[in-house]
Amino acid sequence: MRNVAIAGCGMTRFGKREEGIYELATEAALNAMDDAEMDRVDAIVVGNFASGEFTGISGIANGLAADLNLIPCHAEKVENTSASGASAVKVGLAGILSGLYKSVLVVGVEKMTGIPGSKATSIIASLTHPEAEYPYGVTLTTFAGFGARLYMHKYGAPYECFAMIGVKNHKNGANNPYAHFQKVISLEKALQSPIIADPLRLYDICPISDGAAGLVLVGKDLIKKVEDPVYISGFGQATDTHAIHERPDPTTVEGLKIAAEQAFKMARKDRGDIDVAELHDAFTVLEIIQSEDIGFFKKGEGWRAVQEGVTEIDGDLPISPSGGLKARGHPVSATGVAQLVELTWQLRGEAGKRQVDGAEVGLSCNFAGFGNNSIVFIVER
Amino acid sequence: MRNVAIAGCGMTRFGKREEGIYELATEAALNAMDDAEMDRVDAIVVGNFASGEFTGISGIANGLAADLNLIPCHAEKVENTSASGASAVKVGLAGILSGLYKSVLVVGVEKMTGIPGSKATSIIASLTHPEAEYPYGVTLTTFAGFGARLYMHKYGAPYECFAMIGVKNHKNGANNPYAHFQKVISLEKALQSPIIADPLRLYDICPISDGAAGLVLVGKDLIKKVEDPVYISGFGQATDTHAIHERPDPTTVEGLKIAAEQAFKMARKDRGDIDVAELHDAFTVLEIIQSEDIGFFKKGEGWRAVQEGVTEIDGDLPISPSGGLKARGHPVSATGVAQLVELTWQLRGEAGKRQVDGAEVGLSCNFAGFGNNSIVFIVER
Repeated sequence: MRNVAIAGCGMTRFGKREEGIYELATEAALNAMDDAEMDRVDAIVVGNFASGEFTGISGIANGLAADLNLIPCHAEKVENTSASGASAVKVGLAGILSGLYKSVLVVGVEKMTGIPGSKATSIIASLTHPEAEYPYGVTLTTFAGFGARLYMHKYGAPYECFAMIGVKNHKNGANNPYAHFQKVISLEKALQSPIIADPLRLYDICPISDGAAGLVLVGKDLIKKVEDPVYISGFGQATDTHAIHERPDPTTVEGLKIAAEQAFKMARKDRGDIDVAELHDAFTVLEIIQSEDIGFFKKGEGWRAVQEGVTEIDGDLPISPSGGLKARGHPVSATGVAQLVELTWQLRGEAGKRQVDGAEVGLSCNFAGFGNNSIVFIVER
Repeated sequence: MRNVAIAGCGMTRFGKREEGIYELATEAALNAMDDAEMDRVDAIVVGNFASGEFTGISGIANGLAADLNLIPCHAEKVENTSASGASAVKVGLAGILSGLYKSVLVVGVEKMTGIPGSKATSIIASLTHPEAEYPYGVTLTTFAGFGARLYMHKYGAPYECFAMIGVKNHKNGANNPYAHFQKVISLEKALQSPIIADPLRLYDICPISDGAAGLVLVGKDLIKKVEDPVYISGFGQATDTHAIHERPDPTTVEGLKIAAEQAFKMARKDRGDIDVAELHDAFTVLEIIQSEDIGFFKKGEGWRAVQEGVTEIDGDLPISPSGGLKARGHPVSATGVAQLVELTWQLRGEAGKRQVDGAEVGLSCNFAGFGNNSIVFIVER
């Protein structure tokens, strides 16, 4: 499919930011609009998980339309927990494919700091099952610990493979001026960092970040005006069980397998066509599970790819050259949009020191909760 | 446009309900699916304003997909404050027009009771401008009072015209088994009720309600299987200033004028073609302002229509036969969907004692905040 193109993209630096949610969203939006050389769009779609809970400000799509001087336009916020960013892109994509819009600005934003970390963790945990999970005190980090232990048990993977992902993603993030953490860490440091949810340690877990990312999507009428279009050629999405214990095998996300299949089919591509991927490593173990469920590696063998350097920037399948959620940071709803910003830069050859040589086809995977809704995009030149 | 049809619809009774948010959403969804005689859909779009703040449960689109046994499907939540319901319908509509989906379940839901009323009012007020409005303690009710006083001053309207809308909508709600209030009130009672925000009194203001409403939308491939299709033939939307003081005339919502124009143009209809309308009377004064901005009446003359009985069920242009937000109730994000449920029933001739004779074309207006995002749908047989 070559009906929808990314005409412009931009983001804020992720991290602990002094700015408020509107300032972050506006910065990313203006960067994307400037990059697209456009000053009008037909619609805004804002990806945001929980501005009301984190900041006490709700209804931000309409405030943003006003702040960006885009009145009158169409505007909505889209929420799909940690995959709110990708869901917002999907809604923008559908808006263009529907013929309702010629151009859509998609902004993913989350302002998470400024409240106690324990409160932020509790807000995030409110997306777990309200009867089967939340009342028992679980958080997403708890599930990640369980999942990592199970993965090690089932497939004979050593803990080090997780730590190596943290090290790789920090190395990539060190070359990303927009990353929350721009600092290389040694494997030794990762291995000695404190256990957070056994077996996972500090450097296995993404931080709480502020930030925003934006994309300008255009349809057929405007694509010809775009100098260097990157096409969204494939899209797939699928829900999975809300309660994790209902999954036959918690180290497999059936929804992601379905979403990937849909995306490859729409784009008429296969795994071997992907030059670079941005996955959802909210926890290092997820990068491995996702790389298997998308079909890059056989189930139970993804951990070997890490050890063999396959997923490094100069490897056969670079994963998360941006630094991923671990190092770029994870302002929840900005992530899914930022993944596509990074892929756009990569495909345009604008990724600087973290550039993947000759990247022409990219894939992103944004993950709601612990995989109850997976979204996959394929982009290409 | 006859490309998207409402294949089924349903809702819960609105009011103070014992059920939780998932139970309400499921009840409405199943009613709509049963009505459509369908047990699968490609996607779910959930309209919801603030489940996290009201109930402590977030990520409800994915939970609902699981509860309805619709895994794997596509799922998102859409938020646009008080117009979240209509925005969800719009996203569903675009999903079908895009070709991504053949069928979409749209559910608007809000669970608002169970927390102190003052907290609920504060959550709602968080949608006002975070610097120019919220810190000064304004609420939507404050704005409604200001707006009503200004309207009276500018156009010589007596307060009674507002009270008469409350009386009309209670009369209509008394014939709606799904309404929060199913009780006729006298004009005398309305006139003597306590002032809440001068000049508005108790019966000028919608209640805080729980409830949900659902629609099954289908595209071309499935329309032929629908026994009694109601088409969504027109749609329009526009943002307006976020801060109300920036509007040249606060008794006019420019965004609504634009949204209505878009909808009439898409449907190739005009004001005179509308047989029945569901407007957004969160406050009685809004019903008048909206009826003018949509173009049913000249600016400053809408109040006379009320006094002359034009907007009664047996009048020339029945407005809100359901009882409107005033009497049917206003579970924030359920409202925009419920408006279309009511219009579907009216167009099918299934509205019982509140049936508008021979209704063939209907219009709905769902209003975000105090009009910073207006959405208009036109439906027809």
